[in-house]
Amino acid sequence: MRIKNLLILLCCWPLLSLAKSVTISSPNGQIQVIVADDGSPHYQVNFAKQAVLNPSKLGLRFLQTAEFGQGFHIEKVSTAQSDSEWQLPWGERKNVRDNHHELLVVFANKATPASQHHHFAVRFRVFNDGLGFRYEVPKQAGLTKLDITNELTEFTIANDHNASTAWWIPARGWNRYEYTYRTTPLSDIDRVQTPFTLKLPSGIHISIHEAALVNYASMTLNQQRANVFKADLTPWSDGILVKTHAGFHSPWRTIQISNNAVGLLNSDLILNLNEPNKLGDVSWVKPGKYVGIWWAMHLGEKTWGSGPKHGATTKETERYMDFAAKYGFDGVLVEGWNIGWDGDWFHNGDLFNFTKSFPDFDLQAVTDYGKKLGVKLIGHNETSGSVTNYRRQMKAAYRLYQKMGISQVKTGYVADGGHIKRIDNNGITRYEWHDGQFMVGEYLHSVTEAAKYHISINSHEPIKDTGLRRTYPNWISREGARGQEYNAWGTPPNPPEHTAILPFTRMLSGPMDFTPGIFNMSFHGLRDDVNRPQTTLAKQLALYVVLYSPIQMAADLPRNYEANLPAFQFIRDVPTDWQQSKALAGEVGDYVVFAREDRHSSDWFLGALTGKNARSVTIKLDFLDPSKHYEAQIYRDGDKANWVTKPYDLVIEKQQVNADTKLTLKMVASGGVAIRFKALD
Amino acid sequence: MRIKNLLILLCCWPLLSLAKSVTISSPNGQIQVIVADDGSPHYQVNFAKQAVLNPSKLGLRFLQTAEFGQGFHIEKVSTAQSDSEWQLPWGERKNVRDNHHELLVVFANKATPASQHHHFAVRFRVFNDGLGFRYEVPKQAGLTKLDITNELTEFTIANDHNASTAWWIPARGWNRYEYTYRTTPLSDIDRVQTPFTLKLPSGIHISIHEAALVNYASMTLNQQRANVFKADLTPWSDGILVKTHAGFHSPWRTIQISNNAVGLLNSDLILNLNEPNKLGDVSWVKPGKYVGIWWAMHLGEKTWGSGPKHGATTKETERYMDFAAKYGFDGVLVEGWNIGWDGDWFHNGDLFNFTKSFPDFDLQAVTDYGKKLGVKLIGHNETSGSVTNYRRQMKAAYRLYQKMGISQVKTGYVADGGHIKRIDNNGITRYEWHDGQFMVGEYLHSVTEAAKYHISINSHEPIKDTGLRRTYPNWISREGARGQEYNAWGTPPNPPEHTAILPFTRMLSGPMDFTPGIFNMSFHGLRDDVNRPQTTLAKQLALYVVLYSPIQMAADLPRNYEANLPAFQFIRDVPTDWQQSKALAGEVGDYVVFAREDRHSSDWFLGALTGKNARSVTIKLDFLDPSKHYEAQIYRDGDKANWVTKPYDLVIEKQQVNADTKLTLKMVASGGVAIRFKALD
Repeated sequence: MRIKNLLILLCCWPLLSLAKSVTISSPNGQIQVIVADDGSPHYQVNFAKQAVLNPSKLGLRFLQTAEFGQGFHIEKVSTAQSDSEWQLPWGERKNVRDNHHELLVVFANKATPASQHHHFAVRFRVFNDGLGFRYEVPKQAGLTKLDITNELTEFTIANDHNASTAWWIPARGWNRYEYTYRTTPLSDIDRVQTPFTLKLPSGIHISIHEAALVNYASMTLNQQRANVFKADLTPWSDGILVKTHAGFHSPWRTIQISNNAVGLLNSDLILNLNEPNKLGDVSWVKPGKYVGIWWAMHLGEKTWGSGPKHGATTKETERYMDFAAKYGFDGVLVEGWNIGWDGDWFHNGDLFNFTKSFPDFDLQAVTDYGKKLGVKLIGHNETSGSVTNYRRQMKAAYRLYQKMGISQVKTGYVADGGHIKRIDNNGITRYEWHDGQFMVGEYLHSVTEAAKYHISINSHEPIKDTGLRRTYPNWISREGARGQEYNAWGTPPNPPEHTAILPFTRMLSGPMDFTPGIFNMSFHGLRDDVNRPQTTLAKQLALYVVLYSPIQMAADLPRNYEANLPAFQFIRDVPTDWQQSKALAGEVGDYVVFAREDRHSSDWFLGALTGKNARSVTIKLDFLDPSKHYEAQIYRDGDKANWVTKPYDLVIEKQQVNADTKLTLKMVASGGVAIRFKALD
Repeated sequence: MRIKNLLILLCCWPLLSLAKSVTISSPNGQIQVIVADDGSPHYQVNFAKQAVLNPSKLGLRFLQTAEFGQGFHIEKVSTAQSDSEWQLPWGERKNVRDNHHELLVVFANKATPASQHHHFAVRFRVFNDGLGFRYEVPKQAGLTKLDITNELTEFTIANDHNASTAWWIPARGWNRYEYTYRTTPLSDIDRVQTPFTLKLPSGIHISIHEAALVNYASMTLNQQRANVFKADLTPWSDGILVKTHAGFHSPWRTIQISNNAVGLLNSDLILNLNEPNKLGDVSWVKPGKYVGIWWAMHLGEKTWGSGPKHGATTKETERYMDFAAKYGFDGVLVEGWNIGWDGDWFHNGDLFNFTKSFPDFDLQAVTDYGKKLGVKLIGHNETSGSVTNYRRQMKAAYRLYQKMGISQVKTGYVADGGHIKRIDNNGITRYEWHDGQFMVGEYLHSVTEAAKYHISINSHEPIKDTGLRRTYPNWISREGARGQEYNAWGTPPNPPEHTAILPFTRMLSGPMDFTPGIFNMSFHGLRDDVNRPQTTLAKQLALYVVLYSPIQMAADLPRNYEANLPAFQFIRDVPTDWQQSKALAGEVGDYVVFAREDRHSSDWFLGALTGKNARSVTIKLDFLDPSKHYEAQIYRDGDKANWVTKPYDLVIEKQQVNADTKLTLKMVASGGVAIRFKALD
């Protein structure tokens, strides 16, 4: 890593009492960030000489002291730059370049009585693909405990209010992040979750999010004036936003910027703004593919609770293990294995016991059985949001799982938004949001605690991803959007555009355990008004490449895969850990094309899918190694494919290709293509 | 008032540990409210044997103790009924009937350890036109200070989520209540202000609001699950919602219900749920009509600040007083008369001095001048949200005004939402919402303080109306929605449907100082894409009858009225205090027809207006006294009237009518009719 001083522009610097401004640019000069203090601290952002964010406030308010904002002026600035490369133990790519310019702006309120002199800093890092900034409040005289009551950060979108299109889900709702995306003009938005992606009239795409959310509340955005999206931190149950002390810094507020939609996908901004791996050797964290006792419950064939339809029995688990071993999966997830599922667990998560299994599930026996087959049991801890109950049992549970050879646990926090239950120090039950500071801490605690037992965590009903997998690589995946299960029972099921929006929104934050691969879509018939995946079969295959996760489930029932082994072959072949990834084409909600290179072979894989309209996309295969030839094993929509009436019309064909080949991907509405480029020489 | 016991239905009453439910009906039996305690306290509402609200939670959470909700059961119930009549000193009607059935349900948590036994009550009052309920938390062992952190009240709309239409403005926004209304399916709503009006697929209209908002936070609604609108109280700057003590009750949560839109308009529910007049003799509170130095500033012809265009000069005020006296107005409003307007008052309301006038405004001289003419000066106190500054000067200011014969003051709290500035006890500047508990108290304080000096208050940028004019009749009017000034400079100006939505939403809460009567709409030309009132002239006249306020402004410049004295005659004739009012017809956003009887003569007045579509409405005049004949003085859209190109095409015609007459009101798009029915015998 090289760091050197960087030229910055200072206006009016010598005149102490006048407003100052300072400008920093991205390494390629395309992005300009101007920080100024006239009136109060604010910043603005240009991209390719166009305003992207108009002047937008910066500042914080605390319970214990006066606002850090109004009356604060730029006291000093310092700059740095860095161009380095680092490696992901698993990921969309092995090598990540971190090339940024940094600006640290210290604000102070010299004008007030000296006893109230305070200072804070905003640190900006500007990359070619966007920027991040964070607040840093150092220890200083007169400040100890600090309760944040308001974060004043604004993102003032520079555009004609109604000319931009946004893809968004509402914030502070009952279903957490599990909403269908709305595609609307900016003016229709009140309060929105991040990543918040929009397209300006100029075609510039931006996505606002945050990185390294630790010991702070999750940021949502509230459009309080036209185009002005203000940070709206998720409160504690007592209304305080963040409980901290002098000597803290906020997460990074991030703004990805690209002149087209695809540019958002080829960005490592969020990861670059996270801290390096703190866990040391993480060779015990294993990407992989799994099957499990899960979809059968969502279909109603099996139950989580005990009884005649109980899913997680020893016998059924062993049957899944046989299937996994036969077809090359390394894990079998079991939901409903432990005590707790028989009561009204949704309203009382304290019922759950994380070490005691149902009588018909022999943990020792199934893990022994799996060991013989080379298949691991994947644990499942549904808390239904009773986090105190989970914390109390956590060490004992993880210790048991490690002893049993379980190295991955799916956690669940199924509870209405705002209904996370904790017992406070006075014994009073409090109800928190999934994305408040308290739960930000709880999720991370489960991950760091699990790391001690070499267990990876796949959080469902999680806190949103902010790139912490870089720092804690055993945070292997998470949910955090509407997944496949909504196709079983959701109202409505995920619409055709859902998975064409996810890459440009939710997936910008990190891996998602979407659980693709439903082969039987006819469980309620082939109509557009029943619960089912609203896709073709080819699109189900494409999801394995498009929706990145280091762990991917083959979510359907074994019998449905064995009924279509030719299509299943793609799921068997597709890896989940990549040497590199390239988004090749796409428009938000319309379509997307990804190519990814296997980390452990010379094969490439391609996934492409459409939203509600058919589309042909011609792709140059220039990502392939020009010195190699490849057999393209293509799984595409058949000519009569139709997601409503003929979703199973799948053509599997082979073709020799090389880096010079152009391939036309013909996709029907809510269709797709999945390709393995098998290296031949 | 008669009170007697009332039959109620109790299910499962004898079995103490089982869930209980209790039902109460409206006097006419149409509305049924069922209160039950299975799981946790909740209620549901039927109307005409149809579910209107499905089971909806009740409860409160506090900082100091465990939730009042979960674990609480019905301990006892009592009932009462009342049918009485009371009088409004001024209003839409003189006599108001209060006919309701009452149910008091006491909930207690007997199951927990005795040391934590608590109880609270919910009091329901069910009228023929809707219901109200409120929480009552009595003094009890172990409870003193109570900070409310969550009100659990839900309103679960019983309908197919997308089949209802709602007319709404967003909550917790920068512009307070000053938004154009959105007309959308319920599913498009996240967080909404009240009154919140919607139409179910069955045609039933409901409007959710609150009554008697005192010492509590304003309630907004958050749609957290489909159809479930949860109370979302506006927080203090420190996140607490309400700071109170055991021995409090909440405002009434109100639900107006009608099988058509018009039924919402003919309801006194909100007033009936307020306390009687606490001010005693209020003969000093005077309804009336006024002109003022106001629109000239919005047009840019004059300025609030001093200088060559200063509006509020002695000379200009006397000119307006001459005009007022000549045409029968009893008040002249002056804005910009006092020190403060020359600086950056929007960001520093502390500049305002409420007793010192600009040098070119001689308060003694103008009030003396007015006295000779029988015209009162109407004071104006713009605080720009610096309420501490206002409070410090309030007594001195009101004392001065009383001495000068000023009996009405328009207050202003122009500040972005969440930017009300107060200095707390530690000298720290805090920023509050206009509708949090703090400001609820500040607005009422200004009213009760003003009452001591026999001054009436017309609050702009107010807390929403909840019927407190019954208890404090000097709270004469208020703003609290987009008013006329948006037509001068708003983006966009108020659209044609705006004043066809207001009666069914904002106006359900009480009077609005909309300031109608703009005669010159051509100040930027006659187009649909410039700032101007988007109405015909007849519609401007109709507003005086449609949008009830005991004080009505003739908002335009004197010269514009003198240029059209025939049309102006209606504004001169229309009273502002009514013996009775009847909404005759209407659909939300489409059109509305009101008839009102003058409180001081036998004349009736009618106002009708349309939204964006033309409409003919035939009205039976059966509201007129059948023993009398009337001259109908009709001000209607001309045959070629068109709000865009021919707004001034107004026909004034006379016709003899009586109670048997049917009148067809032909209105163009965004048009109107205004009629005076002058009693002839």
